[in-house]
Amino acid sequence: MSSQSSALFTDQYELTMLSAALADGSANRRCCFEVFARHLPDGRRYGVVAGTSRLVSALSNFHFGDAEIEVVSRFLDAATIGWLRDFRFSGDIDGYREGDFYFPGSPILSVRGTFAECVLLETLSLSILNHDSAIASAAARMVSAADGRPMVEMGARRTHEESAVAAARAAYLAGFASTSNLEAVRRYGVPGAGTAAHAFTLLHTTDRTNEAAAFRGQVAALGVGTTLLVDTYDITNGVKTAVEVAGPELGAVRIDSGDLGVLARQVRNQLDDLGATATKIVVSGDLDEYAIAALRSDPVDVYGVGTSVVVGSGAPTAGMVYKLVEVDGIPVEKRSSNKASRGGSKRAVRLSRDTGTLVEEVVYPAHAGAPHPAGLEARELMVPLVRGGVATLDTPTLEESRSYLAAGLVSLPWEGLRLSHGEPAIPVRFADSGSWRVR
Amino acid sequence: MSSQSSALFTDQYELTMLSAALADGSANRRCCFEVFARHLPDGRRYGVVAGTSRLVSALSNFHFGDAEIEVVSRFLDAATIGWLRDFRFSGDIDGYREGDFYFPGSPILSVRGTFAECVLLETLSLSILNHDSAIASAAARMVSAADGRPMVEMGARRTHEESAVAAARAAYLAGFASTSNLEAVRRYGVPGAGTAAHAFTLLHTTDRTNEAAAFRGQVAALGVGTTLLVDTYDITNGVKTAVEVAGPELGAVRIDSGDLGVLARQVRNQLDDLGATATKIVVSGDLDEYAIAALRSDPVDVYGVGTSVVVGSGAPTAGMVYKLVEVDGIPVEKRSSNKASRGGSKRAVRLSRDTGTLVEEVVYPAHAGAPHPAGLEARELMVPLVRGGVATLDTPTLEESRSYLAAGLVSLPWEGLRLSHGEPAIPVRFADSGSWRVR
Repeated sequence: MSSQSSALFTDQYELTMLSAALADGSANRRCCFEVFARHLPDGRRYGVVAGTSRLVSALSNFHFGDAEIEVVSRFLDAATIGWLRDFRFSGDIDGYREGDFYFPGSPILSVRGTFAECVLLETLSLSILNHDSAIASAAARMVSAADGRPMVEMGARRTHEESAVAAARAAYLAGFASTSNLEAVRRYGVPGAGTAAHAFTLLHTTDRTNEAAAFRGQVAALGVGTTLLVDTYDITNGVKTAVEVAGPELGAVRIDSGDLGVLARQVRNQLDDLGATATKIVVSGDLDEYAIAALRSDPVDVYGVGTSVVVGSGAPTAGMVYKLVEVDGIPVEKRSSNKASRGGSKRAVRLSRDTGTLVEEVVYPAHAGAPHPAGLEARELMVPLVRGGVATLDTPTLEESRSYLAAGLVSLPWEGLRLSHGEPAIPVRFADSGSWRVR
Repeated sequence: MSSQSSALFTDQYELTMLSAALADGSANRRCCFEVFARHLPDGRRYGVVAGTSRLVSALSNFHFGDAEIEVVSRFLDAATIGWLRDFRFSGDIDGYREGDFYFPGSPILSVRGTFAECVLLETLSLSILNHDSAIASAAARMVSAADGRPMVEMGARRTHEESAVAAARAAYLAGFASTSNLEAVRRYGVPGAGTAAHAFTLLHTTDRTNEAAAFRGQVAALGVGTTLLVDTYDITNGVKTAVEVAGPELGAVRIDSGDLGVLARQVRNQLDDLGATATKIVVSGDLDEYAIAALRSDPVDVYGVGTSVVVGSGAPTAGMVYKLVEVDGIPVEKRSSNKASRGGSKRAVRLSRDTGTLVEEVVYPAHAGAPHPAGLEARELMVPLVRGGVATLDTPTLEESRSYLAAGLVSLPWEGLRLSHGEPAIPVRFADSGSWRVR
């Protein structure tokens, strides 16, 4: 995206609503919009907030230049077009930290300003938060399942080329060790990683007897610390040839197909017998959190994860919505069936025992004081992100958000880390009444 | 993406394989890589090729400038870096037309040139084709289910902001009438559409009794042809108020929640009783191809489709792979379990009866003549896309590809249009042997 305007990552109806509001004088009413999810996908126990700093960055490029004005001029009146030419968001935004959890009803983002300036940010906010949070939420489960073993994100080829970059960032935030995606390395400083391609072996084996030539070429260029791909033909032969070529100092072998648990045990034994006791085993091939967990007792050193992480492992979007909750200080709420929202600007605290274990999240009216029950620690969940249209100075780095989540995962009640379907890890309680629907 | 380099939408291992191939002299071997899908997702009957022209466009920006060189210099040797500085793809690409069908094993793309230049295009090619084809494939099923009623794509908020633009394009290609996404309007000329937002009603109803004020504001600004959103509170009251404010010439009402079939019938009766017989009914809210089909007998005029289309309705990626199939004229193929590929550069024809109904697809060796059984029409499926690194001049427009698919859908055997799980609509046969796996 860089310095390209982000203003057209917007649905047309936001502009037509703006036009109507400017015409009837309601455009300058002070509003609060909130982002929240009505439920977690698929019986998940927690969600992970991601994308916040991408959103703050995109917001700074949200302006209508000539190219953007040309498009909206096709359906907007002159007054609205003139208003848009001068537009810069000048309101305030608070939100959950990147790398924090969210649960059904958590007020993940609070956008405050005039109706006109807030209504325009709906699509951009949701696109970024829904995508990045979906990936981070799936990735965090995989990281838990891997139980300390490093994971490489390698799913770029399975998703849109720009989604891939954001997905690599979100997976790293969630605890992945590295990515194969070079644009994510460049743009976000995610550590890069690469192994070997079947194509390289095939390139050297047109007579089908010379896998060794490929391994020799790779080791000569990349050193014995490289990872050789041993499953192009027969894995046992592949491992034998790999150690013959590279010696027992070979960095790693990669297995990308077959029954990965069985093959990992077999290859580990073979490597050990060949004296390559420090050679690592990298496995890949349709791994998701369940497959990763199933390999926990097998001698796997590194997981390569592709498709499942970049498509959110069954939940490619986080399902967050952006709703008007307050106008001129008065709470408003929709009453549509199954889509009710709760009026009023809100804040939230998360309560924990002195052991650090989370107990519940309490959402309370922004005008009220934060609840702080005796005997529990209470942590405010919303931090200032934008003031008067300008990003606050203390945006955390990606590394800081990554550490924040890693520390947070330790605080979940143990059942919150289960992969099976169930209730959210902690309940969300609304401090002032019980009428809010949370799933 | 515009003129930004696309070279880092690439996995690191493609560069390390390039480095090894340059070092051992294999980099200049003449290669053919092919893109194909081993199976269609989820019992689908056909896939729709999309993204081809985005790929050709991205290819023209695939070069390593200073920013890209800086990143790859961290892990590559000087010789490879020097080679990359001069790199431009100079090979040939053939592929299926955008808007054509594909089936398991269809050689959707054929990339030919040196190993060095072809290996670098794997991730970019797959990212674009896997994403865009997943969306177009899901969207085409929805278009069939809608049975001629127009559909608006409005899913931008549920996916990455750039995926959203490509998804709007793919949905339009597949037969959607329009999109809410303004960047897709700007970049690809997709017709734009917008209705009304709950936030606009809420903005005017802080006393909860004044839905009419919102409708008046909208009609004053946008005319009686606008679409009013009637489900913020009570739908019957909403419809009554809408017609009172706009008169019987009101363009449309939108229902975004509840049992859409029941509500559509009820609202149609109410509108007719109020004399608003030409007022249309737009429905939206978690619609997928099955929900759309279920509304076929109800008085719905327009479908608004969001989440399900932009995430591929259960299949967010098309699962296509990019495989080396030929080196210096010699077929090569991987033998990994369940991931076998079929060696040799290929082409394909699709056979049909003189009624136009498709019979089968035949994939044949590129060096052989096209099969043409007596009594059947045979159409070549691969067209030249790139020659000597340069896009061919006759790239179809988005409108042409859209018409191409619309015509193609008429040629499927009737069971090919079924939404239920099953076999591909037509079989893919390999002309020279039976050893290829096509599940």
